[in-house]
Amino acid sequence: MPKNNKEKLLIFALGGLGEIGKNMYVVQYGDDIVVIDAGLKFPEEEMLGIDLVIPDITYLVENKSKVRGIVLTHGHEDHIGGLSYVLKQLNVPVYGTKLTLGLVESKLKEANILAETKLNLVNGDSEIELGSFKISFFRTNHSIPDSVGVVLETPEGIVVHTGDFKFDLTPVNNQMADMHKMAEIGKKGVLALLSDSTNAEREGHTGSERSVGEALSEAFRKAKQRIIVATFASNIHRIQQVVDAAQTYGRKIAIVGRSMVNVVNIGIELGYLHVPEGIIVDIDEITKLPADQVVILSTGSQGEPMSALTRMARSTHRKLDIIPGDTVIIAATPIPGNEKYVARTVDQLFRVGANVIYGPGSISGVHVSGHGSQEELKLMLTLIRPKYFIPIHGEYRMLRLHSDLAESIGVPHENIFILDNGDTVEISNGKARYGPKIPVGNVLIDGLGVGDVGNIVLRDRKLLSQDGILVVVVTLSKQNATILSGPDIISRGFVYVRESEELLEEANRLVTATLQKLMIENVNDWSSLKTSVRDVLGRFLYEQTRRRPMILPIIMEV
Amino acid sequence: MPKNNKEKLLIFALGGLGEIGKNMYVVQYGDDIVVIDAGLKFPEEEMLGIDLVIPDITYLVENKSKVRGIVLTHGHEDHIGGLSYVLKQLNVPVYGTKLTLGLVESKLKEANILAETKLNLVNGDSEIELGSFKISFFRTNHSIPDSVGVVLETPEGIVVHTGDFKFDLTPVNNQMADMHKMAEIGKKGVLALLSDSTNAEREGHTGSERSVGEALSEAFRKAKQRIIVATFASNIHRIQQVVDAAQTYGRKIAIVGRSMVNVVNIGIELGYLHVPEGIIVDIDEITKLPADQVVILSTGSQGEPMSALTRMARSTHRKLDIIPGDTVIIAATPIPGNEKYVARTVDQLFRVGANVIYGPGSISGVHVSGHGSQEELKLMLTLIRPKYFIPIHGEYRMLRLHSDLAESIGVPHENIFILDNGDTVEISNGKARYGPKIPVGNVLIDGLGVGDVGNIVLRDRKLLSQDGILVVVVTLSKQNATILSGPDIISRGFVYVRESEELLEEANRLVTATLQKLMIENVNDWSSLKTSVRDVLGRFLYEQTRRRPMILPIIMEV
Repeated sequence: MPKNNKEKLLIFALGGLGEIGKNMYVVQYGDDIVVIDAGLKFPEEEMLGIDLVIPDITYLVENKSKVRGIVLTHGHEDHIGGLSYVLKQLNVPVYGTKLTLGLVESKLKEANILAETKLNLVNGDSEIELGSFKISFFRTNHSIPDSVGVVLETPEGIVVHTGDFKFDLTPVNNQMADMHKMAEIGKKGVLALLSDSTNAEREGHTGSERSVGEALSEAFRKAKQRIIVATFASNIHRIQQVVDAAQTYGRKIAIVGRSMVNVVNIGIELGYLHVPEGIIVDIDEITKLPADQVVILSTGSQGEPMSALTRMARSTHRKLDIIPGDTVIIAATPIPGNEKYVARTVDQLFRVGANVIYGPGSISGVHVSGHGSQEELKLMLTLIRPKYFIPIHGEYRMLRLHSDLAESIGVPHENIFILDNGDTVEISNGKARYGPKIPVGNVLIDGLGVGDVGNIVLRDRKLLSQDGILVVVVTLSKQNATILSGPDIISRGFVYVRESEELLEEANRLVTATLQKLMIENVNDWSSLKTSVRDVLGRFLYEQTRRRPMILPIIMEV
Repeated sequence: MPKNNKEKLLIFALGGLGEIGKNMYVVQYGDDIVVIDAGLKFPEEEMLGIDLVIPDITYLVENKSKVRGIVLTHGHEDHIGGLSYVLKQLNVPVYGTKLTLGLVESKLKEANILAETKLNLVNGDSEIELGSFKISFFRTNHSIPDSVGVVLETPEGIVVHTGDFKFDLTPVNNQMADMHKMAEIGKKGVLALLSDSTNAEREGHTGSERSVGEALSEAFRKAKQRIIVATFASNIHRIQQVVDAAQTYGRKIAIVGRSMVNVVNIGIELGYLHVPEGIIVDIDEITKLPADQVVILSTGSQGEPMSALTRMARSTHRKLDIIPGDTVIIAATPIPGNEKYVARTVDQLFRVGANVIYGPGSISGVHVSGHGSQEELKLMLTLIRPKYFIPIHGEYRMLRLHSDLAESIGVPHENIFILDNGDTVEISNGKARYGPKIPVGNVLIDGLGVGDVGNIVLRDRKLLSQDGILVVVVTLSKQNATILSGPDIISRGFVYVRESEELLEEANRLVTATLQKLMIENVNDWSSLKTSVRDVLGRFLYEQTRRRPMILPIIMEV
């Protein structure tokens, strides 16, 4: 029952479409905006020097008074990692499940904004009202506990957002995805479904997390000496299975790596991780135990150069080394882009004598994905049976393949909307169509700077990274058109100066000649002089070296 | 029968161990050196601005008079790509099969050294003598025709080098790997085997190239409009299968991409590629044909930004665009490190309306590896049954897993040598042990420069790429200890200057104050002044921004 005939339902993303990361989806009806998730993304290769990327929330800031709240689906960085930045510009209530809020709290504390943030606890049974939206949830399975999908009852109809999900019929905590509730929602009639596309390229079903427990247990059984397990800190189910295996085989566990320590503490405190008394011990204590009573649970499953595992492998960890005979289990697969780091870490572990269990979960058995494969995506589509379908959470090809799956189970082609960030779907009177574009973008975080690095800075970093820089300094006297001192050429990242003396001397002569000629011709505005130096020198260096260093002419006048 | 009791057989690598690429293996007996392959490697991520990497051949140059020749196993870049650089320092005879030499010739022509190089044609039946080595060959299967393994009869015994290989029992050209000859060599008794470790991580058997032909044919059958196939230019077997499918389905082929045109021409000329009259047509002609009679065979299977396929997808190709309805077949898997480029190209192809067949060969069917998997590696070990085993051609974990395979078929642990580049195995009187180290390294090629970029230049490029550079220019008068002009601060790749005016002004004041204070204290040697500016400014900027730009103080004196 629209409260105003002209109101429309708008659905769009500020992040998460055409990319993996910085998930942020928005549902708006008239003056009511609800935001789902506020994630970050790790920088692409060409974003040189950048630490993190978050969504541009200009639209939300401009409509500040309309934003009723941010609803979180689960506690992964690509869903909550941007929250502390967003809340600084937009202090609105946040809704999430217990573990999600536990992880959020530790972030907000670090960012010094915990006190002023309104955190609201929800669970699979909660119902909340945000403006004209009635919002409820359904439990899903994912690689972090306490994940939910979101149901928004809007004046135009029901919109369902799956969050990240798989269907694990034998979950570690026995909390299965609430298929009954999904079926019930589907039966009511759903206007639009937004569903996770991460594994749309993968055939079949994703394996159960419990199978990882079996593989871990098998590895523990065979290990004669110490066991080191590296996995994602947030995968509490997997950590639970490491704890269980340690208990079975009479081993103690030391936890290393800041994020692993943090999540294990939160997990225990909130009751998501069940650790028998005395099984977790201090690093200093573990080194005193016999090798066959030791487990080290570590960060570094992505081969991150500064992580605990990599430092152990390289003997640069403060307290722990790899010892020949150690069994190292890498219970994760590389996130795209990290393959080389993981490979290097595995190489280094082998070099120092470890037995390494690694590789695709289908072979090693010690990893399964947290996202559903094609059959599970079809199952979700079938349970919810929406009128309109918007694949979310994925790069373009994943959204595209997910839309093919939707068609295969009967969603009409014209009812599927493959969007980019900022594209909107506008629904009124039960009819959906493309609406106006919303401004979107990447906000780059570099050190303390949020958004102060843009395309020009990145372009310069790219140029500098390829061929370095030449600074040409010269002091002129304009009055009598002579060079008082210089040109001095200083290079960084271009050539070995010692081996290129001739080249640089020739460059020097060329700059001198160029400047003298121009001054004789009475060209003496700085900008023309600089441009000429840049052109002449650039051409010369390219001819001689086939490189294009950045050239920075500095002309002083006394 | 050693010609001198003190002579020893030395086996080592100048490239190819602990890495994929720049393969170069050396066998030496007394004053006779034979080199196997002279490859290049593509730069690692941290080798900023570098084009190519070749082995450091200092050892060979220092022993120039002993080098009897370079024997090539096949025509891939990681085996022949360094040849033109090596030959400039070391003009020795080169031995290779017909196709390999065909590809080498076109390289040497480009490098202007074809005339002075002695190229010697061999085949699977050839026997040659190089110093005290009697050398013969055996045919292998690989993803380029005319690949061979090398048998070196040395005074200490027989050494076998497999080259790159798989066992394809149904090869496209019907030329199976010469298992009978391998068995015969094995029966004679082999002292040492050097064998390809690329796929030591992969279980089972690698698929036959013929299965790719079947998948291609199926894709051709289904395609309603144009077909675009991207694959490795050197995979002539696969190109043959594209030609065959085109013929079957009544389509013409246009070839795009420089390396594809080059290899197809060489393949046809030397008789490796059989193309019916009139089936290959010009690009200008293909655009006039109906869509269902068109095949475009293209480079770009690795998503290379400048390749023909990527340019077509982005509508920046001079002559061809992707048309909605095109079927694009990416008949290759990404080389590690290229995953993201391939993914972006696939995304872009989908965006412009193509139907894309891509992904792991096990799913798409349009790619198989050229390297044998574990069962094939075991088969090679079993056929050759060497006394000593040296896994080659692979990163450390691959060499390690390959050595496990060797043990599993009965090679004693102590007879297996896992080497790094430069480690030597020394064999005398039938006993092998580790010998002296040989100097090795990466020679980086950047533009025209060979080896003029080293660690300092790379470190500077890395620094510049992360946080950019600040140049601080100031003119001093030492006599009266005053600043005549400046300080001027110029930044590149650090911050948006417009949005950081305050920061830079504050930096300016800080430099001024620092210099004035020092000059009052009579510190006026340039080096101390520069160091102070660098320290004070660096600390200030880190506090303010958590970034560490390179700081380049330039102090002029008039």
